[in-house]
Amino acid sequence: MINISFPDGAVRQYESGVTALDIAKSISEGLARKVLAASVNGEVWDSTRPITQDTALKLLTWDDTDGKSTFWHSSAHLMAEAVESKFPGVKFWVGPAIDKGFYYDIDLGDRKLTEEDLAELEKKMVELAKQKNPYVRKEMPKAEAVQYFTEKGDEYKLDLLQNLEDGKITFYTQGNFTDLCRGPHIPDTGYIKAIKLTSIAGAYWKGDEKNKMLTRVYGVTFPNQKELDEYLLMLEEAKKRDHRKLGKELGIFTTNDDVGAGLILWMPNGTVIIEELEKLAKQTEEDAGYKRVVTPHIAKENLYLTSGHLPYYADSMFPPMEMDGEKYYLKAMNCPHHHKIFDAEPKSYRDMPYRIAEYGTCYRYEQSGELFGLMRVRCLHMNDAHIYCTKEQFAAEFKAVNDMYLKYFKIFGIEKYVMRLSLHDPEKLGQKYVNEPELWKETEEMVREVLVEANIPFVEVKGEGAFYGPKIDVQIWSAIGREFTLATNQVDFAQPRRFKLSFTNHNNEPEVPLIIHRAPLGTHERFIGFLLEHYAGKFPTWLAPLQVKILPISEKFADYANQVKTKLRSYGVRVDIDERNEKIGKKIREAELNKVPYMLVIGEKEMNENKLAVRRQGKGDIGVFEVNAFIQTITEEIRERKSGE
Amino acid sequence: MINISFPDGAVRQYESGVTALDIAKSISEGLARKVLAASVNGEVWDSTRPITQDTALKLLTWDDTDGKSTFWHSSAHLMAEAVESKFPGVKFWVGPAIDKGFYYDIDLGDRKLTEEDLAELEKKMVELAKQKNPYVRKEMPKAEAVQYFTEKGDEYKLDLLQNLEDGKITFYTQGNFTDLCRGPHIPDTGYIKAIKLTSIAGAYWKGDEKNKMLTRVYGVTFPNQKELDEYLLMLEEAKKRDHRKLGKELGIFTTNDDVGAGLILWMPNGTVIIEELEKLAKQTEEDAGYKRVVTPHIAKENLYLTSGHLPYYADSMFPPMEMDGEKYYLKAMNCPHHHKIFDAEPKSYRDMPYRIAEYGTCYRYEQSGELFGLMRVRCLHMNDAHIYCTKEQFAAEFKAVNDMYLKYFKIFGIEKYVMRLSLHDPEKLGQKYVNEPELWKETEEMVREVLVEANIPFVEVKGEGAFYGPKIDVQIWSAIGREFTLATNQVDFAQPRRFKLSFTNHNNEPEVPLIIHRAPLGTHERFIGFLLEHYAGKFPTWLAPLQVKILPISEKFADYANQVKTKLRSYGVRVDIDERNEKIGKKIREAELNKVPYMLVIGEKEMNENKLAVRRQGKGDIGVFEVNAFIQTITEEIRERKSGE
Repeated sequence: MINISFPDGAVRQYESGVTALDIAKSISEGLARKVLAASVNGEVWDSTRPITQDTALKLLTWDDTDGKSTFWHSSAHLMAEAVESKFPGVKFWVGPAIDKGFYYDIDLGDRKLTEEDLAELEKKMVELAKQKNPYVRKEMPKAEAVQYFTEKGDEYKLDLLQNLEDGKITFYTQGNFTDLCRGPHIPDTGYIKAIKLTSIAGAYWKGDEKNKMLTRVYGVTFPNQKELDEYLLMLEEAKKRDHRKLGKELGIFTTNDDVGAGLILWMPNGTVIIEELEKLAKQTEEDAGYKRVVTPHIAKENLYLTSGHLPYYADSMFPPMEMDGEKYYLKAMNCPHHHKIFDAEPKSYRDMPYRIAEYGTCYRYEQSGELFGLMRVRCLHMNDAHIYCTKEQFAAEFKAVNDMYLKYFKIFGIEKYVMRLSLHDPEKLGQKYVNEPELWKETEEMVREVLVEANIPFVEVKGEGAFYGPKIDVQIWSAIGREFTLATNQVDFAQPRRFKLSFTNHNNEPEVPLIIHRAPLGTHERFIGFLLEHYAGKFPTWLAPLQVKILPISEKFADYANQVKTKLRSYGVRVDIDERNEKIGKKIREAELNKVPYMLVIGEKEMNENKLAVRRQGKGDIGVFEVNAFIQTITEEIRERKSGE
Repeated sequence: MINISFPDGAVRQYESGVTALDIAKSISEGLARKVLAASVNGEVWDSTRPITQDTALKLLTWDDTDGKSTFWHSSAHLMAEAVESKFPGVKFWVGPAIDKGFYYDIDLGDRKLTEEDLAELEKKMVELAKQKNPYVRKEMPKAEAVQYFTEKGDEYKLDLLQNLEDGKITFYTQGNFTDLCRGPHIPDTGYIKAIKLTSIAGAYWKGDEKNKMLTRVYGVTFPNQKELDEYLLMLEEAKKRDHRKLGKELGIFTTNDDVGAGLILWMPNGTVIIEELEKLAKQTEEDAGYKRVVTPHIAKENLYLTSGHLPYYADSMFPPMEMDGEKYYLKAMNCPHHHKIFDAEPKSYRDMPYRIAEYGTCYRYEQSGELFGLMRVRCLHMNDAHIYCTKEQFAAEFKAVNDMYLKYFKIFGIEKYVMRLSLHDPEKLGQKYVNEPELWKETEEMVREVLVEANIPFVEVKGEGAFYGPKIDVQIWSAIGREFTLATNQVDFAQPRRFKLSFTNHNNEPEVPLIIHRAPLGTHERFIGFLLEHYAGKFPTWLAPLQVKILPISEKFADYANQVKTKLRSYGVRVDIDERNEKIGKKIREAELNKVPYMLVIGEKEMNENKLAVRRQGKGDIGVFEVNAFIQTITEEIRERKSGE
C-alpha cells in the first residue's frame, strides 16, 4: 500500500499501481469525469499513469492551468492525427499548448492550407474525438526512437531526439497517430467536445529565418460547446474592440516610420484621455500625501551601475549615447532619479514617509517583432511613484497603495482582478535574493496580511519576487473577459542601500528607509489600450475626448448653438458644434460613430424654449432638458467620474 | 569737399580730413561731448580719425552698443596702463570689451593680484583718467611692430602679430601706455568718470589648458558715477536673487553628477511651479483654440534629415543611439514630431487653423563649460506649439500669438520688453533664405503690421531671420533691470514643403499651409530661472509652492489648526502646519525665510472666535480675519493670479 496525501491535508492508502483516475473514481464518478491530469509530487502526469510510491496528489481539471494545458496539448495531437490522415507524409515539428489553445508547426511540403482545409480538418477531428481513442504512453530507448524516425525519414523529430536523454524518452499514441512526446495527456480523445481551428501562419523552423518556413495551425478546444461559443463570441467582440483599430478611428494615437516603431504619437483625442488620467492620478496622489517631481529622461552610466540595472538589465535598455567621454542612457525606469531627489536634501523621521510621484516617461528596448499597438511599446508613460518609509510605517503605506488600486478599479468598472504575490525562495538567499531573511519574512508577512485583511483575491508564487523584495503583479480582466497585466507594486530593501539613502531617526541615528515602488495605473500606453477594449471606445463622459456635440437642424439655429456651446465651455465641458449644412440624421449618425457621449439636437422648438433635445450615445433620445438642467446633469457626471452605464 | 550723409537722410558737405568729432561739434557742443566713436560706412572708427571720402556717418554715443564697446575697450587700455605703472615688466595678451564692461588677460609672472591691488589699481585709473590723455592712433609697418615687441621681449603681442596683415597694423598710445590694437577708441581718458574693477580670474592663454595660466581682471566703467552706483546696486541685488542660490534654498531644483550636468532634477517645490505654469499655458491655449499632443523624445535619423536639422544642426544635438541598424536621436525640437501628427489624418480647410501644443522636453548639446544653472541646460521643457494655417489666416494667428505674449507679460509683471524682428536679406535668397521673395515680403509686412498696430516696442534686424521665415526674439527685463532672452515666435514656409504637408482648400485642391512656431513662456528652465530673480524667490501666491503656513502658538491649538488646514485644502490651497514645539517667533522667522506668502498665527483668542491672525510675507501682521473671509481673499488672489504686490 502507498500513502496518497491530498491538498486538504487528508491522507489515504491505496494499492501500489493505482492511477489518479482510479483515485478520482474512488471519490466520485462525477469528479473522475472531470479529471484531465494529475500533479504527482509536483510533476504533471497522465491521470492514467500508475503511481507506485507515497505521493502528494492533486487532481487537475479544466479549472487548473495545468489541466487546461494538458487538454490543449492532447488536442494538438488530435489535430496532427487529422492532418496526417488527410495529407499522408507530412512531417511535424512541435505542437505545444499556449495561453489560449494550441498550435502545431507542420512541414506540408509545397502544399498551402486553405480555410476550406481547416473546416475539413475540424470535421475530421470531431470524428476522431468521438472514437474516444485513449492516449497511450510508451517509454522508448533512444536508439529505438532514432531508428523509428530514421526509417520514417523525419528529420524534425530526429533533431528533437538529439537533445533528449536516453531513458527519459516517451512516445504517445492515440488512434493511428504516434508522436515523440514528453506528455502528459488526457485519458482519451472523447474529452474533446468542441473544436475550432482559428488561424494559419508561417513559422520558420526553430524561429530562424534562414530555415525552412513551416505551416503553423492554431486551434482551440473545449470540454463543451457552450464554452467554445462564448469564446468565439468574445474573440469577435475583441476584434471589434481592437485598440489599434479603435485608436485610429477615434484619433487616439498614431505611429510613424520616420519616428520609429513602438514610439507612440498621441493625437489630440488621446492626449485628452492622458490628461484626464493624469488629473485623476494627481488628485488621488495629492490626497494621499504625495509630492510631485520632474526628472530628465537620461542619466550617466554610473547611475545605472549604482542601481544595478547595468549590466543586468542592459538588454532592455536603449544603447548609450557617448558624449564628452561619458555614456548617457535613456532611463528605463524612474527610481534611480527619484532616489537622487530623496537624497538631495537631508531627511529626518519628520519627513517620512516621503512619497514622490511622476508620470515619468521611460524607454525600453523591445525587439521589433514583439511590438504590438499600445501593448508592447518602446516609450512608456508610467504612473510611477516611490514611497520612502520606516519599517514601522510600511504596512500602513502598503495598505494605502492597495486601497488606491481598489479605488481605481471601482472608477473604471474593473470587476475582476487578481493580485499575484511573488515571494522569495529561502534556498536562494544571497544569490537570487538579497540576503535579509528577517526582512523578507517580515515584509512578506506584512504584505500578506494587508491582502488578507482587505479581502483582496490573490495567489502566492514562491521564487518569483524581485531580487530586492516581494512584489505584487496586478491582473485585471476587461469587460469582455480578456486578461491584462496592469501594474506592479513592489517592496525594496536593496536599492536604498545601494544608493546609501538614509534618514535621521528618533534616536538621532542614520537609518536606511524601505521603498515601495508602485504604478497603479500602469503606463498610459497599456492602460489606454485596455480602456479602448474595455469601453469599446465608448468612454465614460469624464474621459471622452469630445463630451458633447451640438447638432443644429439648420443654420438658423447657429447663434443659439453657439450660446449653448459657450455656456457649456464655461463649465469646462468639451463641446463642439456640427455646423455643416447636412441632414440631422447624418449628423447624429456621425456623432454616434465618433462615440460622443451626448448629442444636443437644436431646432425651432428648442431655441424658442431655451431647451435642448438630448441624445445619449448608444441609447438614443433621452428627453428634452432645460439648458441649466443639462449642465447640472453632465457636470455632475463628469465631476464624479461616473461610468455612464 | 566730401559728402557726409546722416541716418535721417540729410547730406552735408565738409572739408576732406574732417573728423566725426568735428562734425558733431558743428552740430552742437553738447552732442560732441557725448560722441564716443563713429560708424563710418558701416565700420566703427575713432571719432578723431580724419574722414577723406564720401561717407555714411552715424555718431555713436553711450546709447549705442558700439559706443559702449568702444568706451569699455578704451577702459581696458586705461586699466593696462595702471597695471603697467604699478607692476613694470608685466605682459598683456588681449583686452576686449564684453557684454557689460571689459577684461584684460595679463601675464603677471609669479605675482598674484589681491583685492587690495584692485583697489589701488582703481585709484590709479581714476588718476590717469583725470589727465584726459588722448588715445593716439598710429599706423605701423609689420616689420617695425615686430621689432618693437621683440625688443620688449613680448611673446604675446608677437603671437598676435603673426596673424596680422602688413599695412593694417595700428598702435594706440594713451599717456605712458602703448598697445598693439585695432581700435577704435574714445577721444581721451577723461570720458571715463566712474571705474570699478569687479573680479579676478585665471584664464589659460588662448583658452588651452596646456598653456600658461594668465590673470584675467574684469572691470566696468561708466561716463558718470550715478550709473556705476546703480549698476553696482543691481549686481548686489542680482547676487541676492541668484537663481542657483534661491533654487537650492527654496527646494526648487537640484542637479547630480551621476545624472549629468545640465540635466535638472525638479524637486517638489519646483514641480509645483512647473505645474502652475503648465496649467496657465493649458488654460490660455485651450481658450485660444489649441489642441494638445504628446510625442516621444526620440526619432529616427530620417526625420531629422527630412527637417534639415541633420546635418546642419547636428552639433547642437545629442549623439545618436544605434539600434537594429538604425540611428535614433533625442529630439532637440518638437516641430518634426508635430508635423507628423498634422500629417496623420487628411486635413481640409475646415480643420485650419490647426493648432497643436505640447510642453515638449527637448535635449540640446551644450559644452559643459557653457552650462549655467537653469539658464543654459541640456534638457529643456518647452512651452511649444505649432499653428498650421492658410495665408489668409496668418495675420490673425500671428496677432493672437503676440496677444498671448502680452497677456503673459501682464500676469508676470514684466514691464520692459522688446521684440526683435529678424528679417531676410534679399541678396541671399536661395542661399541663406528660402527663395520665395513674395512670401518673404508678404509675411514680413504682415508681421510688421501686427507689431505696429499692437503698439509693441520692436527693432528690425536685416539678415537674421531663420532660413524658413522671419522670426521674433523676445527680450524681457527682470524687476532689477537684467535682460533675458525669453522666447521666439517664427514664421515657417520651408518645413511644410520639406514634410510635404497639405490641406484641401475651398477649391478642393491640395495647398501647403504656413506654420507658426511659438513658445511664449520659453522653457521651464529659463523662465523659472528668470522668475526666481524677478520675484527674488517671493513668488506670488498662485505660484508659491506652499501658500499658507499655519503656526499654532502651542499644541493646544493643534485641532483647530487641522480644521483650518482641511478647510483650506478643500479649496485647493497648498497649506501646511508647523506643529513643532517651538516659540512662535521662530516659526514666523522660518516661514518668512521660506518665503511662504501667508502665515496664520493661531492662539487662544483665534480659536475661541474662529478667527485667524494673518501675516503676509515681508509685510508683517495684516489683521485678524474670519476663516471664511480669509479663504475668500486668498482663493480670489490665486484664481486671478494676482501679483501680490
